[in-house]
Amino acid sequence: MSVTLLESGIVDVSFGEDVKVIKPVNLYGCEISNNCFIGPFVEIQKDVRIGKRTKVQSHAFICELVKIGDDCFVGHGVVFINDVFSNGGPARGNKALWRHTQIGNNVSIGSNATILPVTICDNVVIGAGSVVTKNVVKPGVYAGNPARLIKKLE
Amino acid sequence: MSVTLLESGIVDVSFGEDVKVIKPVNLYGCEISNNCFIGPFVEIQKDVRIGKRTKVQSHAFICELVKIGDDCFVGHGVVFINDVFSNGGPARGNKALWRHTQIGNNVSIGSNATILPVTICDNVVIGAGSVVTKNVVKPGVYAGNPARLIKKLE
Amino acid sequence: MSVTLLESGIVDVSFGEDVKVIKPVNLYGCEISNNCFIGPFVEIQKDVRIGKRTKVQSHAFICELVKIGDDCFVGHGVVFINDVFSNGGPARGNKALWRHTQIGNNVSIGSNATILPVTICDNVVIGAGSVVTKNVVKPGVYAGNPARLIKKLE
Repeated sequence: MSVTLLESGIVDVSFGEDVKVIKPVNLYGCEISNNCFIGPFVEIQKDVRIGKRTKVQSHAFICELVKIGDDCFVGHGVVFINDVFSNGGPARGNKALWRHTQIGNNVSIGSNATILPVTICDNVVIGAGSVVTKNVVKPGVYAGNPARLIKKLE
Repeated sequence: MSVTLLESGIVDVSFGEDVKVIKPVNLYGCEISNNCFIGPFVEIQKDVRIGKRTKVQSHAFICELVKIGDDCFVGHGVVFINDVFSNGGPARGNKALWRHTQIGNNVSIGSNATILPVTICDNVVIGAGSVVTKNVVKPGVYAGNPARLIKKLE
Repeated sequence: MSVTLLESGIVDVSFGEDVKVIKPVNLYGCEISNNCFIGPFVEIQKDVRIGKRTKVQSHAFICELVKIGDDCFVGHGVVFINDVFSNGGPARGNKALWRHTQIGNNVSIGSNATILPVTICDNVVIGAGSVVTKNVVKPGVYAGNPARLIKKLE
């Protein structure tokens, strides 16, 4: 038997001003802007960009190819996805099969929500426990599995 | 850049007798009664109260304003919520907008369930992966997103 | 008050060749085969068996009585279940009430999915955020709560 044990940590992260992080976390190769908060047991992968004043709560997972705007809230246990198993299984390293996620500004994602690779516009609330499978192009509150508009926001 | 790194830990927690905790955890300002079990990668926030013989499994998150009774089971990855984004986004420190959750005795919450701020009476089972959006006032088994009664219990 | 603090770790695990593990994890009494990957914040309980080249992503929880085949993908935050509260609450140590889960080969389980005790055949994709409540006996893509067939695979 042979096992390689690596430690979670903070490697090659570009932090803005006044960022607060609660360890243990696994953050690598990402950009975290001014006044962000990152809770415990969070993993953020490389090339992720997180805007100003955004809070990422405990147990969240943010994968490669995700960009998140300013003043967002990523609830506890929220997971993002870049590989939709389009060939019937994982891309296994073929990143040409991965897809991007773009989250606007002032987007609040409720805890335990699951975000497939989509675009979400500014001023959106995603209900807790929702599964977002399609782009969200109008401000509003969206919830359910799959998530649907349940309330318009001005 | 400036980043403040804090460590998860156990701070200002009132433990009863014969409590067992598997680290790493992030527990602060809460009350955990006799004979409780707290699994790894759990976060419990301040002013939470957990009754006797209740088990909180790995990856659970229990937020401020939650009270849980005796002989309960909080499954793996269960998250509680106190802020329902009632103004279209997080309360951002305005706790007047937060809401309470009260869980009775002998309540078993299946893994990956999401519990909005509600009251749940004694002798209830919440199915795994459910999203509980309304008060539960009668004993029974509730499941789905949103959770609905699927079986009455005597 | 009296509290017993234990540390997560790696105890009595049988590793194959070229396994990679990102700590912190809580792994005990399980068998993890050649070329597996185990991400951070993962818990795997005793007697679990995981086949070759299977990846278990961050925040996953795999309970006792689960067997997973070769070339599988267990997404971030996926939880397995062995106790369905068949008597209206947890079995509380009566393992005669627990049930088995058997996952075939080339099964890809999307992030935040919840897997009740079932059998899943080879060549299956489970969508992210799904709740699998019944056996899956034909290859295909299954999604939703409860999970249903949404696409057949050859």
